[in-house]
Parts: sequence; C-alpha cells; structure tokens
Amino acid sequence: MKFSIDRIKFVNQSNNVLRAISSKTTIPILTGIKLDLDESGLTLTGSNADISIQAFISSDSDNDLNIESTGSIVLPARFFSEIIKKLPGDTLTLEVTNNNQTVISSGVSEFTINGLDANSYPHLPEVETSEQLTIPTDLFKEVVSQTVIAVSTQESRPVLTGVNFILNSEGLTLVATDSHRLSQRKIDITSDEAYSFIIPGKSLSELIKTVSDSIKEIKVAISENQVLFSFDNVMFFSRLLDGRYPETDRLIPSDSSTRLMFDSSKLISSVDRASILSHESRNNVIKLVINVADKKAILTGNSPEVGTVEEVLELENVEGEDLEISFNPDYLKQALQSFGGSTNTEMSFTSPLHPFTLRPTENKENFVQLITPVRTF
Amino acid sequence: MKFSIDRIKFVNQSNNVLRAISSKTTIPILTGIKLDLDESGLTLTGSNADISIQAFISSDSDNDLNIESTGSIVLPARFFSEIIKKLPGDTLTLEVTNNNQTVISSGVSEFTINGLDANSYPHLPEVETSEQLTIPTDLFKEVVSQTVIAVSTQESRPVLTGVNFILNSEGLTLVATDSHRLSQRKIDITSDEAYSFIIPGKSLSELIKTVSDSIKEIKVAISENQVLFSFDNVMFFSRLLDGRYPETDRLIPSDSSTRLMFDSSKLISSVDRASILSHESRNNVIKLVINVADKKAILTGNSPEVGTVEEVLELENVEGEDLEISFNPDYLKQALQSFGGSTNTEMSFTSPLHPFTLRPTENKENFVQLITPVRTF
Repeated sequence: MKFSIDRIKFVNQSNNVLRAISSKTTIPILTGIKLDLDESGLTLTGSNADISIQAFISSDSDNDLNIESTGSIVLPARFFSEIIKKLPGDTLTLEVTNNNQTVISSGVSEFTINGLDANSYPHLPEVETSEQLTIPTDLFKEVVSQTVIAVSTQESRPVLTGVNFILNSEGLTLVATDSHRLSQRKIDITSDEAYSFIIPGKSLSELIKTVSDSIKEIKVAISENQVLFSFDNVMFFSRLLDGRYPETDRLIPSDSSTRLMFDSSKLISSVDRASILSHESRNNVIKLVINVADKKAILTGNSPEVGTVEEVLELENVEGEDLEISFNPDYLKQALQSFGGSTNTEMSFTSPLHPFTLRPTENKENFVQLITPVRTF
Repeated sequence: MKFSIDRIKFVNQSNNVLRAISSKTTIPILTGIKLDLDESGLTLTGSNADISIQAFISSDSDNDLNIESTGSIVLPARFFSEIIKKLPGDTLTLEVTNNNQTVISSGVSEFTINGLDANSYPHLPEVETSEQLTIPTDLFKEVVSQTVIAVSTQESRPVLTGVNFILNSEGLTLVATDSHRLSQRKIDITSDEAYSFIIPGKSLSELIKTVSDSIKEIKVAISENQVLFSFDNVMFFSRLLDGRYPETDRLIPSDSSTRLMFDSSKLISSVDRASILSHESRNNVIKLVINVADKKAILTGNSPEVGTVEEVLELENVEGEDLEISFNPDYLKQALQSFGGSTNTEMSFTSPLHPFTLRPTENKENFVQLITPVRTF
C-alpha cells in the first residue's frame, strides 16, 4: 500500500472518523484507525462499542490522491492524528513496508510507525440502504439537541439512555425521558410504514458534532439493531437500544389549573441566579410562588450556609389558581434553553406534586418539555 | 455599611482581587473577599498564603459610587463573584444589616448573604513605598514570562521555585533555574543601591495575568520579606523566598566547540513533531546529530511501542566539530518559544555531556537559555 494525498483534506476526513475512536476501549485494535486503499479510493474507519464511522476519499475527485499500490493497514489513532496534523508539507506520502511498518513522510519529516494487520479489524455492521429517510441537517440537529438533554445518564434502565424515534404516517416524534423530566418534539416527516427505534443519546451527541453545517441533508437507514446516517462521504453507524420504550403520551397532562406566560430570556436569567445558591444546598431545589391577582411570580433559592435569593418576575399572562411549587432549576434552565430563540414560554401546572409542562409559544403544538416537581414538605 | 455602584466597574475591580483568593486555603476567612468602605472610597482585598491583592474604587471618580454609610464586611468570594457577574441591573446596591447579613440587590434580584466580621481578617503586610522602581508593563511581562518557565516545581529546594531579581548599577537581571535548565534575561534598568531578591514563580505568573495591557507601567517596592507591585488602583503584594540563590553566572559556558544557527520557527515545529514519540517513551529524550560539513542536523525521536521519527534541518550557519547530543524536547521548545518573534536562534555546544546555550540572534547579549543534556549511553 502506497499513496500520496493533499494533507489538509486527509486531516479533515480523518477527524470525522477519529470521533468514533476511544483510547479507553478494551479491544486493542479499536484504538487504531483503519485505512483501506483500492482503485476507487481510500476508506478510513474508526469504531467503538457504540458507533462506527467510515469516510471515503475518492480517487477521481480533487483530493490529489495518487495511488501507487493498494492495500490495508491499521495505525494507532492518537499518534496518527497528531502526526498528520503537525506534518510540515502540503502533501503527505504513506507507505506500508515490512511487518506492517508504515512510513509517513512530508517535507523534512519522516515517521515510521508500527501498524497492525487490517485483517484483525472487526467487520462493520451491514445496513440495507434501499429505503432511506432524508432529513434537512439543521432540522435534524435542532430536534436531536432539543430532546437528547432529557436522556438518562444512569445505566439502570438502559432504554432511557436513548432517544425514542417514532415514525409513521402522522410524522416523526422524538421523545427522551430520565423519569424526572421529559422532552418531546414532533416534525412533519412521514412514512407509510411505521417504525419505532431507540438511538443511544451518546451516539446522537457525537453525530451532531460530526455533521458540519455545510451539509444540507442527512440520510437515515435502519436495520434490526443498527442505524446508519449518511452524509457527504461519511457513513455513521450506531447500534440501537434493545427493549420497549415506555408509553410517554399519557405522562403529559391534558388539563391544567394554572397557566402563565414568561419572557423566556428573563426567566432563564432568574433561574440561573437562583441556582447559584440552590447548587450549594443538599437537594438543589428552587421554589416558584405564583400570585395570579398580582400577575407576579417569585422565585427563591437558598443555601443554609451561604444565604438566600429572591427573584421577582412579571408575568405576561396568567390564569387559574395561585400556586407554590418546587423543582430542580437545572431542568428548567435546560428546558428553556432548548426553546432557542422563542421569546415567550407557556407553563401549565395541575398541582404542586404533578409534572408541569413548558412550551415555546412559537411552536406549542409540536414541542413540550415536562418537569416533575420536588416535594419539599 | 451601605453603597450603590456601577455594576460593571465593580465586577472588573473585584476580578482583579479574586485572583488572590483560593478555595483551598486552610484559613476559612481567606476564602472571602474583604470590602472596606470609607469616605474616600471602597477597598477590595483578597489574599492567600503567597499573595494579597488590593483594589481601590475612589468615590470621586466616575465609578458612580454612592456612599450611604461606611463600614467593612467579608463575603464568600466564590458566590460573591458569581452573583455580581449575573445580576440583572446596571447598578447594584450592597447593604450590611444585622449579624453581618449582607443584602445585594440589582433590578428584580435580591440576595441575602451570610458575611463574616471584617475584624477577623488578617492584616496585610506593610511595604515602604518611598523608594520605588518603575518598569514599563510590556517589558516587565516579557522578561517575567521568559524566565518564569525555568523555575522548579519541586519544593525540595524552595529558592529554585522563584525567579531571582538582581538589581544594581549595571542593570536588572532575572534568573530562574530548576537545575535542568536555566533562563537569564538582562534589561537596562539600574539602581545605585544593589538588591537581590527571589519572587515565587507562582506569584509572578498570577501578577502578569492581573496586569492588563492597557496599563503603561508598574511600580515595584521591596521590604525585607515582601514585594509590592502597584499599577492603576491595584496593589499586588507577594512574599519573597528566604535563602540564598545559587551563583548562576559560572554555569553558563563561555567557550564552545560547536556553534550553529537555526531558523527558530522551523526548529520549533521539528522539535514538536519529534516529541510526539519521545513523550511516549520512558525518558522523553530526543537526539540531535550535527553534521558540520553538510550544514545539516538530524533530530530523531522514538518510542519502542509506537515508532520513530526523523527530522532533517538545514543549518543557516555552522562552525566547529560534529556532535551528537540528547535532551528533553520540552525544554528546547519552551526555550525557543520564550524568544518570541526572533527569526534565528544561536546554539553553542561544548560536549555531549555539558549544558548548551540558546540565544535569540536579535538579543544575544542580554538573553540566554541553558539546557543540560541527558546521557543516553
């Protein structure tokens, strides 16, 4: 195997693949990046237990890829990444010699790196791509980041560490919940066949970092236990989570006894300040007291050691009964941040002990965040 | 004690003082920031075992400082800093009520914080400021950052954790060494009286971060065991290190058997690449082989597990004998970086086992970095 290539383009494609590679893996060969060179071009592969990423550099495009002989090799990813980034020339040459020894040279610099036999590298999952869903990148990134905040970080109920994608003729719904809060977002992408699958939250977070904003759309294909996202010359595989996702529809209350509307950015700032003190107390809870007649709400936080804070909030709109309710301020803050640029937020409460909902006024039919309050008495 | 003040100006002066405050201190009151308000203005104080910083906000300048009643208080620094940064208004009001309880209010927000009695706060050192040295800020920052890299991080010989300032009629010399390398820089600031004192490296690093680039010059005053740096409305105190600094002049070789000149930025890049592999080996050493006849040098690094690297360097100028020498690449890299924009670097060697010197060609009389090689055979 021997080729030369434009160094910057090679670095860019390698960076896509390196996201999948962890130095913490228990399978030594997975700390490496695999290079496969055939007449059509160079394929780079990285993988860990959850995700695999493959990038293809075609020989017939403007990558200045000159193939002298084909072949495969696995190189230690951490060093490989640092080396190609720091090499001095515009072009680099890579040649596998005896015993998987690999010579990488560029300008005044020549590295000889101990590679590993590519035959020992595990096979990638196969996903049938005849039926694919296409989603605009910006919409996909938006809905994923709005829901992935609510996935559980506890492994005790594995399905809750993922986002449930429910696709049918009515639309595509993403739901995540860690059982303390829930995020649900619907978009107008439909399918005649009905699907429901659970993608690990970590895979989705890695995926939205991998997809650059210059990419217009992402293709999604599903097999029994894998999902494949394709964009540009990159294929991003993730395993799916086994098991049944809980029915979440019935968790979202349809009635309410108190409804009000906040200026979103003012509410975020107040919650942020109130949590300076609640973060110091054992249970990280702030209290919201709603006074309907005065059209005011008071947010309080306290820490026995440090002190107390009181925030007075004017309500844009309020109806129903007075209420006193306590909850984790971080959940509220993340929920509000997920609404992005929405100017106002609608909140609906049924009782101090029942979950309450937040909806951005600009998109209240398709987006809801739900938070379970904390009993403080 | 009660006052109101322009919030942003208050935050800026508080930030200067907060640099001195560590949450790791064993003296609880030093985790606080002290506020002293008298008719002339507000003094903020922060301190740890090594440094103390005091900032003064005058009542007669444009700080919008409105004094209602004078007094003193100590407030928990970490929360205080976060609170004043996040408050919503342009102005804030601070009032000490009963039992050192302090109410900080701004816009819709009101914090009540448990303060501590200011009488329990330790007294600051006193430094006579009748005789002061004045140094331009940019020059001071330059010479400190050029030498402080060589201070020792080991407490086994405490004097080596500081930079030795030697001031006399010939000039001001700064020297630091951790016994593996040495950095010495001279500048043209003189004094009729001779001084020699050792300032902890950590204090100097903190100081150059505190002094903003908008400040033109720094005043330095010395007492028996303290140094005081004054600038703007800030006073920065540091303890001095006790003990005798080693005579370093005799360590710098006056003769050489091999002299050469490198392009500084090319040499830094090559050392950086060579160290990718040396960092993986047990002793972090790279080898430089100088071939005088060919006007070439070869830099090699290796790690038994990962592989080897070879860098070919063209020499601008070389005279003397061929040489093979090994050393820590990080020392060489930091020495070269300390030369800043110098295009070329002069290196002088006497033998593979004796310290060698680096000098920036633009300032070779006043600046030298010395590195002790490593025996590899």
